[in-house]
Amino acid sequence: MKSVAVIPGDGVGPEVTREAVATLEALRLDLKFDHLDHVNAGRWLTAGVAMTDDDFERVRASDCVLFGAVGDPRVTSVEYARQVLLRLRLELDLYVNHRPALLLHERLSPLRDPDRRNVDLVVVRENTEGLYVGVGGVLRRGTPDEVAMDQEVNTRLGVSRVIDYAFRVARRAVCMVDKSNAVKHGGQLWRRCWSEATAKAGARLATSHLYVDAAAMRLVADPSEFDVIVTNNSYGDILSDLTAQLVGGMGVAASANLNPDTGFGLFEPVHGSAPDIAGQGVANPVGAILSAALLLRSQGYGDAATAVEQAVASTVAAGRCTPDLGGSLSTEEAGRAIRAEL
Amino acid sequence: MKSVAVIPGDGVGPEVTREAVATLEALRLDLKFDHLDHVNAGRWLTAGVAMTDDDFERVRASDCVLFGAVGDPRVTSVEYARQVLLRLRLELDLYVNHRPALLLHERLSPLRDPDRRNVDLVVVRENTEGLYVGVGGVLRRGTPDEVAMDQEVNTRLGVSRVIDYAFRVARRAVCMVDKSNAVKHGGQLWRRCWSEATAKAGARLATSHLYVDAAAMRLVADPSEFDVIVTNNSYGDILSDLTAQLVGGMGVAASANLNPDTGFGLFEPVHGSAPDIAGQGVANPVGAILSAALLLRSQGYGDAATAVEQAVASTVAAGRCTPDLGGSLSTEEAGRAIRAEL
Ligand SMILES: CC(C)[C@H](C(=O)O)[C@@H](O)C(=O)O
Ligand SMILES: CC(C)[C@H](C(=O)O)[C@@H](O)C(=O)O
Repeated sequence: MKSVAVIPGDGVGPEVTREAVATLEALRLDLKFDHLDHVNAGRWLTAGVAMTDDDFERVRASDCVLFGAVGDPRVTSVEYARQVLLRLRLELDLYVNHRPALLLHERLSPLRDPDRRNVDLVVVRENTEGLYVGVGGVLRRGTPDEVAMDQEVNTRLGVSRVIDYAFRVARRAVCMVDKSNAVKHGGQLWRRCWSEATAKAGARLATSHLYVDAAAMRLVADPSEFDVIVTNNSYGDILSDLTAQLVGGMGVAASANLNPDTGFGLFEPVHGSAPDIAGQGVANPVGAILSAALLLRSQGYGDAATAVEQAVASTVAAGRCTPDLGGSLSTEEAGRAIRAEL
Repeated sequence: MKSVAVIPGDGVGPEVTREAVATLEALRLDLKFDHLDHVNAGRWLTAGVAMTDDDFERVRASDCVLFGAVGDPRVTSVEYARQVLLRLRLELDLYVNHRPALLLHERLSPLRDPDRRNVDLVVVRENTEGLYVGVGGVLRRGTPDEVAMDQEVNTRLGVSRVIDYAFRVARRAVCMVDKSNAVKHGGQLWRRCWSEATAKAGARLATSHLYVDAAAMRLVADPSEFDVIVTNNSYGDILSDLTAQLVGGMGVAASANLNPDTGFGLFEPVHGSAPDIAGQGVANPVGAILSAALLLRSQGYGDAATAVEQAVASTVAAGRCTPDLGGSLSTEEAGRAIRAEL
């Protein structure tokens, strides 16, 4: 029996998470759900806290988390995302953010050249350090002489373990992305860890290195050449939104926040809370449902994961999907269409 | 009379800079050139220095700089770019990096949807602070417990002056890009400076805000919706390579590193030294020549700048260009074709 903490969050989060949970339930596996519907922006605004320590302990006591999205236009504080999503990533040491981008149907590619549309890659994003550590401060706040500092921190432990993971999941090639020609201390550390890992890996996989600016360019020019991209927290954030767009937009992108050592994972669509379309029943549940498939695979239900992925692929191919993918179904109808294929 | 320091640099830098200088010469303006051919990786490798203080003073004594590219596969030190290009940007306080992306011909767009191909935008990149300040250090170097730190620094002076510049050059709209939901000290400062600037600007221009991950996504989804994007040094680096790719690749992208207060500027193609194609005469000179046009405009030769831009547009439209743009000309032939239109 596996227990799944469910945090739907804000905006379209609850709408898409509902379909993901329904998909998991339809599989009749031995899963137990612990619903934390109250961890959201509404509570942050009224009670000044979104996730209490008790909530956090409930999450930690589970085997994994199914997460929706955080973000609300009424919340101006930069603390909110930090205290929910980033707290979970950092305190549970979910050091890998595994973000696959797979083109489900040729019509979803924004690219002109048919030979370059076929995307099947994974961005492996370091998920616990870099610019996201939350270390820094402000001098002379609010004066004309204000100075704001945010520390980017990279450790050998953090960099080498995420590179090792990238080598483990790669099928053909690993490309390391940094900006060591400008941001030197972290850059040098990434390059050294990279050299060691490539030497250790031998010739099994092709390896390459790109500066992040060149990587953004190459991903638009020809994403079909990539297999696994490994990079830091900030570049991984940016490049994985870019790759999501190359396979049909944010509606389809799934992600797994993993600690490969403990086996704990948090699974969430890459999209945000999308307040502009929340409550209209038009949000695409595919990102959330494919995240549930990643959850299944990580918890030992590999066949069920594959079944969900195939159900998603066949409904999307047949146009039984939401408007962003060229269909005309609502969130709930799209979820139901996928479950009908299981 | 205006004096132009010329630093061709490495790889394809000398090849494309030669065409840019020839273009400027063909205009028979009152320009004087000071050639610093020796500021390059070869000298770094033999003498341990690429740009001496004397070189730097020669540059400073000029009115502006025409720059090629820095970077060489034999140089593994992360110091090299810092001591040449980044030193010039930081010490000459060239706080604006102005990077236009204009689609010269519809065939150059990588996008499938004809309605979204029409890109005419400018990335205004903060060019003196952020992650590029070079402040940081390493603890326990080379041990398993190594910690590398790089400080991102944003100042009210730095942020507000680049936002002001963005408002001055915008025609329709300004979009501010940050990551204030995760990188909080600098993020909050950017947001405050942004609120003040939008209040001051009134309703003349449309304004919007995007997180950097969403900006990367929107730029692939529909770049035609953007006018001016203003952002920090690191995000500007990444997004401007992305936008270059949306208008035909690195071969066409030009940039101006400016201090709008002193009038000093450094003009360079966005592309790097491209060692893989250096010496073959196939590099595209358009990025360098359009950078020379930006130089002309900044130095008071607006009509000449427009003439160069039109000559580039008409040769590219006619297919008289290098292979990356669908033509079959060499670097030199492409340069000559452009000069023939002047
Ligand atoms: C060479 C490198 C340090 C530089 C930068 O990142 O600024 C380059 O990529 C650019 O964009 O001009
Ligand atoms: C909400 C935000 C802090 C988060 C991030 O940047 O990590 C999101 O964009 C993501 O990619 O999961």
